[in-house]
Amino acid sequence: MYETSVEDRLQRAALSLFAQDGFDGTSVRAITGAAGANLGAVTYYFGSKRALYETVFEIEILPFREAVAEIGRGPGTPLERLERIVQTFFEYLHEHPALPRLILQEMATSADLPEGPRRALVSNHGTIAAVIAEGQREGSIRDGDPRLMALSIGSQPIMLALMRTVLARAVDIDQSDSTTRADLTESVSAFVMAGLRRDS
Amino acid sequence: MYETSVEDRLQRAALSLFAQDGFDGTSVRAITGAAGANLGAVTYYFGSKRALYETVFEIEILPFREAVAEIGRGPGTPLERLERIVQTFFEYLHEHPALPRLILQEMATSADLPEGPRRALVSNHGTIAAVIAEGQREGSIRDGDPRLMALSIGSQPIMLALMRTVLARAVDIDQSDSTTRADLTESVSAFVMAGLRRDS
Repeated sequence: MYETSVEDRLQRAALSLFAQDGFDGTSVRAITGAAGANLGAVTYYFGSKRALYETVFEIEILPFREAVAEIGRGPGTPLERLERIVQTFFEYLHEHPALPRLILQEMATSADLPEGPRRALVSNHGTIAAVIAEGQREGSIRDGDPRLMALSIGSQPIMLALMRTVLARAVDIDQSDSTTRADLTESVSAFVMAGLRRDS
Repeated sequence: MYETSVEDRLQRAALSLFAQDGFDGTSVRAITGAAGANLGAVTYYFGSKRALYETVFEIEILPFREAVAEIGRGPGTPLERLERIVQTFFEYLHEHPALPRLILQEMATSADLPEGPRRALVSNHGTIAAVIAEGQREGSIRDGDPRLMALSIGSQPIMLALMRTVLARAVDIDQSDSTTRADLTESVSAFVMAGLRRDS
């Protein structure tokens, strides 16, 4: 039988509690209680609640940054890679539902992002802008500032992940339904491809 | 000299405090203190802190919904009207900086929106989808589900308003600079127009 370590259990409990109640709304006692650890375990293993929070956020977001960077330098035309990046945004944010919650909590309570998500934002934005610039050089992508055009791409899947519940309730577009999710991913992909492509 | 009413002062104080500290983070005492009113004034004039919050949110968002609806049924081709709607999103969210803060606070702490913003979302989404459908019928806008395509349009300016501070710090795109803001509005407008237009 597989026995998880105390650190693993603390991280898992912290991720779910921070995503649900935010950093301020989550007590060390709630985390250690949910992890079945003693009250001193957060300090012992991570130093502080803040350090645990940043560790958990970094672990949750690092593979996202790596996946986008890998597509950016991978095979395929610039437009093909950008389409895969859009799909990766949707898939990753769906498979890691705590991540949009953490981002939302963070943006609502603080003006700045912790180091992990900040580096992911800088890296993903830079990757997308670089692929756009590459497509402009080879003539497949229309003119425009690649750093601003990159924001048009990233903002759609992130906003739609953040608004998941609100959209389901207000306009009956429910991303927990896999067909709706596939249709929405396809719609945003098509919008982004049309938004980027140079008229031939 | 112009003398503001107690209700006005309470609403103004409440708007700024709710935007800054959220609903839970704002006490009735803080609101009445900032408004120079007595502690019972919130209950007397609005019934409850919650009712004051919903009033303030509704007042802040109602002209936005009305402006978008008016453009939707106004003159111009469907693409022209959609371009004006994108510009209105940017302008309104810039001129009402409390609004993205309120939306963010609300999305972070609750699964649902209060009545005012909920109706604004339903109305703006419906307006954009209807203008897209009109453009599809006349042949100027490419095929696709108008209700999903509408999300691609609305999500960009809202996300960029929500991420204002984060983007300025992380990727040095600072919307408090009017040239940058104009460039970003123009970039998103061009992206949306290219994303919608049927290839001729």
